Amino acid sequence: MALVYGGVEGGGTHSNAVLVAADGKILAETEGPSTNHWLVGVDQCIETINDMVQRAKVEAGLDPNTPLLSLGMSLSGGEQKDAIDNLIAQMKDRFPTLSQHYVIINDTIGAMSTASDCGGVVLISGTGSNCRLVNPDGSQIGCGGWGHLMGDEGSAFWISHLAVKTVFDAKDNLVSPPHDVTHVRKAMEEYFEVSNLMGMLPHLYRNFQKSHFAGFCKKLAEGAEAGDALCQYVFIQAGRVLAKHVEAVLPKAQELLLSGNTGLPILCVGAVWGSWELLKPGFTEVLDKVASSDKLKGRFHGYSLLTLQQSSALGGASLGAKSIGSAIKMDYKANANIFYKHSFNSH
Amino acid sequence: MALVYGGVEGGGTHSNAVLVAADGKILAETEGPSTNHWLVGVDQCIETINDMVQRAKVEAGLDPNTPLLSLGMSLSGGEQKDAIDNLIAQMKDRFPTLSQHYVIINDTIGAMSTASDCGGVVLISGTGSNCRLVNPDGSQIGCGGWGHLMGDEGSAFWISHLAVKTVFDAKDNLVSPPHDVTHVRKAMEEYFEVSNLMGMLPHLYRNFQKSHFAGFCKKLAEGAEAGDALCQYVFIQAGRVLAKHVEAVLPKAQELLLSGNTGLPILCVGAVWGSWELLKPGFTEVLDKVASSDKLKGRFHGYSLLTLQQSSALGGASLGAKSIGSAIKMDYKANANIFYKHSFNSH
Repeated sequence: MALVYGGVEGGGTHSNAVLVAADGKILAETEGPSTNHWLVGVDQCIETINDMVQRAKVEAGLDPNTPLLSLGMSLSGGEQKDAIDNLIAQMKDRFPTLSQHYVIINDTIGAMSTASDCGGVVLISGTGSNCRLVNPDGSQIGCGGWGHLMGDEGSAFWISHLAVKTVFDAKDNLVSPPHDVTHVRKAMEEYFEVSNLMGMLPHLYRNFQKSHFAGFCKKLAEGAEAGDALCQYVFIQAGRVLAKHVEAVLPKAQELLLSGNTGLPILCVGAVWGSWELLKPGFTEVLDKVASSDKLKGRFHGYSLLTLQQSSALGGASLGAKSIGSAIKMDYKANANIFYKHSFNSH
Repeated sequence: MALVYGGVEGGGTHSNAVLVAADGKILAETEGPSTNHWLVGVDQCIETINDMVQRAKVEAGLDPNTPLLSLGMSLSGGEQKDAIDNLIAQMKDRFPTLSQHYVIINDTIGAMSTASDCGGVVLISGTGSNCRLVNPDGSQIGCGGWGHLMGDEGSAFWISHLAVKTVFDAKDNLVSPPHDVTHVRKAMEEYFEVSNLMGMLPHLYRNFQKSHFAGFCKKLAEGAEAGDALCQYVFIQAGRVLAKHVEAVLPKAQELLLSGNTGLPILCVGAVWGSWELLKPGFTEVLDKVASSDKLKGRFHGYSLLTLQQSSALGGASLGAKSIGSAIKMDYKANANIFYKHSFNSH
């Protein structure tokens, strides 16, 4: 086999794999379901990865029985050392011809490695959410990424949950809803195919599927675009709390990240960013306040939001290659685009 | 077999069963683990119930092969009609000698039926939480009881979660903690046997046991009693939100419930009420505000908090007997005690 490196991007709903040559040429790409091992379990996680990569080998005209040089996996939920070691041990054991070397990194790092080698902030809002600041010197600081039981603020799950919880609280008279719940309640009953709140319980417990629950967010985006105030409200709240993740890591940002022409680069990853116009009022409001506060001593002049043009699997592949002392040629300029830029007025 | 009625109280952590004669005499009592079918599944739920009741028959000197006249089960999580019908169908099928008739009621109703036949508010704070107003005419209105993914506000789970989340948010710099987190963090690491936040993930996901997670609340109560400000804070917040459940159902209370000498009777069920002194500042603050607001037009003069002296299984047994046109003689005065009384000053 030629020098072929593999990369995987594993999300809470979808995943994909790429095979890359050392010159950066993408040889094959495949897709699969969730590979978040917290959500689907270790067995399904590694089977899905094996399946995607083996299909990619065939697609690229390679022998599926020849291992890749390395496989770099950028996984949501990929951080706890014990869990990662266990995943890799099981992959080596069950799929000996998959790859010679394995690396698992958190999905924030996979995304950052796809977009840049100069650092920045990665802000994920997909099924779940996560944020990480990567400094030019490689030092990192994270915020969030603990999953839906400990936050996932601003994610599709969180937005869906906030909307549903607002309906429950209104029904219970526990909290007054900020806006009329009629549309959200109807949309919820339609999406989850239930006729009352009690019917939601199996969706929350026995048959809970994070990815399906989070999928309701898409209906809320449609409602917001059609003008429903509560739908708009939950996205504004999401924008706020996503910006608060940036605020949380900002004090640790090195000068070089803040002083560039386009301000702090924030790499926005995940399907929720497709609703940027809905997130925008809350997001910009929070960062405006941060900039005008004294905490950062005037160091925060602006920011730019970037979106990936390539899957994070490419960054995973790049880090996998690095881990064995090799390198994949990366075209960072082509891999990420600025979609929003904001400069704070100087005083 | 003599005329014997059975009752079950099923919680998120513990359960118990009683056998009762028509004159109210308790013939036997047994205990068992959680029978919340949302948490342990249908099979384990009905097996635990069968086991407790059959042991009780033997303890009472009865033939375990002779069915009870009725079995009234007061279950946390017992409300969704499909789920209840399914539980009863499976019990009849698998354990034909258990009982002739079955009734499943929500744990709030089982508790109320143990304490009174005049109605009042039931406010549960155990592993989970729930609130229900039962009017003298039998009409009801509920608030909460949707489980930990949709609230359980003020419960042991919720208190534990609030404390743990405060530690996570402080570490992430996402939210400033209201008090120093050092003690809670240490207590968390001890109780869950972890050395860092990442170690908490299995407790939240793969190995999640609501009852074990909620058990951390006991350590927080100890910390609060020893003077830790954050531990005290989470209980004050719990007191506040529990009182908000009362506020939520109060507008539907009939005059008779509000006009008695001891004010609105609030039946407090669940282990968290053992920490009443810790809940008190938040609880009384919210109800003071409710009383002084215009919403209830001066109808809310005071309230009394009661605690059960008997298991809710007794109320379950009573409702089971009623469902077949019989009755168990109940000594309500002996079954519940007032432990706190509050009158608002009239203006």
